[in-house]
Amino acid sequence: MNQPKVINVSKLNMNSEIKKIEKRLQQSIKSKDKVMEDASYHLFSSGGKRVRPAFVILSSQFGREINEDVYCVAVALELIHMATLVHDDVVDKSDKRRGSLTIAKKWDQNTAILTGNFLLASALEHISNIEDVRIHTVISSAIVEVCKGELFQFQDQFNAHQTITSYLRRINRKTALLIQLSTEVGAIASGADIKTIRNLKMIGHYIGMSFQIIDDILDFTSTEKKLGKPVGSDLMNGHITLPVLLEMRNDPEFKEQIKQLNPNSSQETFDTCIKRIQTSDVIRQSQIISDKYLDKALMLLNELESETAKPLFKKLIKKVGKRSV
Amino acid sequence: MNQPKVINVSKLNMNSEIKKIEKRLQQSIKSKDKVMEDASYHLFSSGGKRVRPAFVILSSQFGREINEDVYCVAVALELIHMATLVHDDVVDKSDKRRGSLTIAKKWDQNTAILTGNFLLASALEHISNIEDVRIHTVISSAIVEVCKGELFQFQDQFNAHQTITSYLRRINRKTALLIQLSTEVGAIASGADIKTIRNLKMIGHYIGMSFQIIDDILDFTSTEKKLGKPVGSDLMNGHITLPVLLEMRNDPEFKEQIKQLNPNSSQETFDTCIKRIQTSDVIRQSQIISDKYLDKALMLLNELESETAKPLFKKLIKKVGKRSV
Repeated sequence: MNQPKVINVSKLNMNSEIKKIEKRLQQSIKSKDKVMEDASYHLFSSGGKRVRPAFVILSSQFGREINEDVYCVAVALELIHMATLVHDDVVDKSDKRRGSLTIAKKWDQNTAILTGNFLLASALEHISNIEDVRIHTVISSAIVEVCKGELFQFQDQFNAHQTITSYLRRINRKTALLIQLSTEVGAIASGADIKTIRNLKMIGHYIGMSFQIIDDILDFTSTEKKLGKPVGSDLMNGHITLPVLLEMRNDPEFKEQIKQLNPNSSQETFDTCIKRIQTSDVIRQSQIISDKYLDKALMLLNELESETAKPLFKKLIKKVGKRSV
Repeated sequence: MNQPKVINVSKLNMNSEIKKIEKRLQQSIKSKDKVMEDASYHLFSSGGKRVRPAFVILSSQFGREINEDVYCVAVALELIHMATLVHDDVVDKSDKRRGSLTIAKKWDQNTAILTGNFLLASALEHISNIEDVRIHTVISSAIVEVCKGELFQFQDQFNAHQTITSYLRRINRKTALLIQLSTEVGAIASGADIKTIRNLKMIGHYIGMSFQIIDDILDFTSTEKKLGKPVGSDLMNGHITLPVLLEMRNDPEFKEQIKQLNPNSSQETFDTCIKRIQTSDVIRQSQIISDKYLDKALMLLNELESETAKPLFKKLIKKVGKRSV
């Protein structure tokens, strides 16, 4: 039914590829219902780095061709990502996302829940014509894991007894999985061989782990303007991230302070903890851990065969490592 | 990848088929997370008529065989149905479902949202190995429509300006679509020919429309014990259903009363409206409309070829028409 259109660009123009994805994303959130369309568009237009589509496109360079399936999965993965953001904001009762009001805040909570569902459903519709059953299998399993991850994150809120291992497991589900899916599915859809698929999957995993660690660092080191939400939001929402866990390990007294935190703690209490992390060496230590993941990704990338596709991929990996937003 | 196991029962034992589905459902809600598993099991064990799996199995009788794909879609459609119930209860802020506490009430709202997502994801995982791309296409489109339907229902709450046409459109999305999907996908998965698939799809549509109208009647005519929630819950949640719309059409004064209803109306006000419907002829009129849908389903069923599969299907259709729970 779905005859792939062979597009086969010899030199990849990433900007124009992302523009194509943007156009399709915009199309796919069109709905007969104005509220749903407006709410989806509100999130869509508030930015986002389109990291997942970018990695789908980049990974497809290691296959035979960029075909229709590649674009479909690129759009679908961004829609899945958007759906998780919308539901995360409901669960966290967040007011702001990327500098704009969240859907629950601008409309209401029910509209947010249902828009999240709609975005996920649209993602499924986008891949429903793909004939390669491997793509359905890996995407569905990933969605199950992402859903579990959302619950674990919710359950771990204000839980000071978690370990660095459980943190890593959580960010794997929360972020790394979808980026790993992007590289894996980009490779599958473009007809890459099994070894390349496996390699790109692992590259995506390492990039995703690094990506989330950097996110968690930036939550302390960036500015409210750049973050689009208050500095230290994670901790205020009870999400205990790597820098905090490292500081807790270094200092039992700080650990006690974190144990006392709860949703009703005063802003002053939160600010003290946030300041402590900002001025601690744990930021540098977290960055080192993130870099280690990126190094692993780069090493695996070197093993891949297509010499033409590597430089741009490397560039993007390095950009991930140095990003400030 | 997915080699269908030919089971090919010559005489269908519906009870044992449903038992098989129950077992698989129970398996599929197993999760490493206790809360998620408990919450899913809570809903699973509170009953439910497994209408969608039953229609999948029945429709598969018009194809070549009951195979593994048939069971997978039967389980998936029940999981999708369960997911929508969980999210509907969050949107409606309902306390009870099938006589038990809702997940939001027994645990909390976030657990309910995330369990709903998990159930939907599990459904996807269940069908992810199916190779026939038509199944993915029709299921995804249906999920999109169901999601839209949930939003429309939410937006139509306490909207006394809706018409019977908009009601029918809403129950189509809310209920008929998933039952229509059951008969359609049951037919596809079992290898039925195109004409039979189209026919069974329409049969499912008519059954689904009737099914929801009867649900909406029972909300007024049944007992709290049988309903598992207070009589008149729909109206109290602002869902204006067929009996109410018919009565509004008959009596402009009653229409004015309904227009005044809002979430803060007193129990007494609601009770007056509920009583009015219970004692009105609109219950009988609604039943006639429901019966017309069932007649259409029966007529189409007669056109189908398999004489062995028809009697049981007819029996189930008639059971739908006469059900009191």
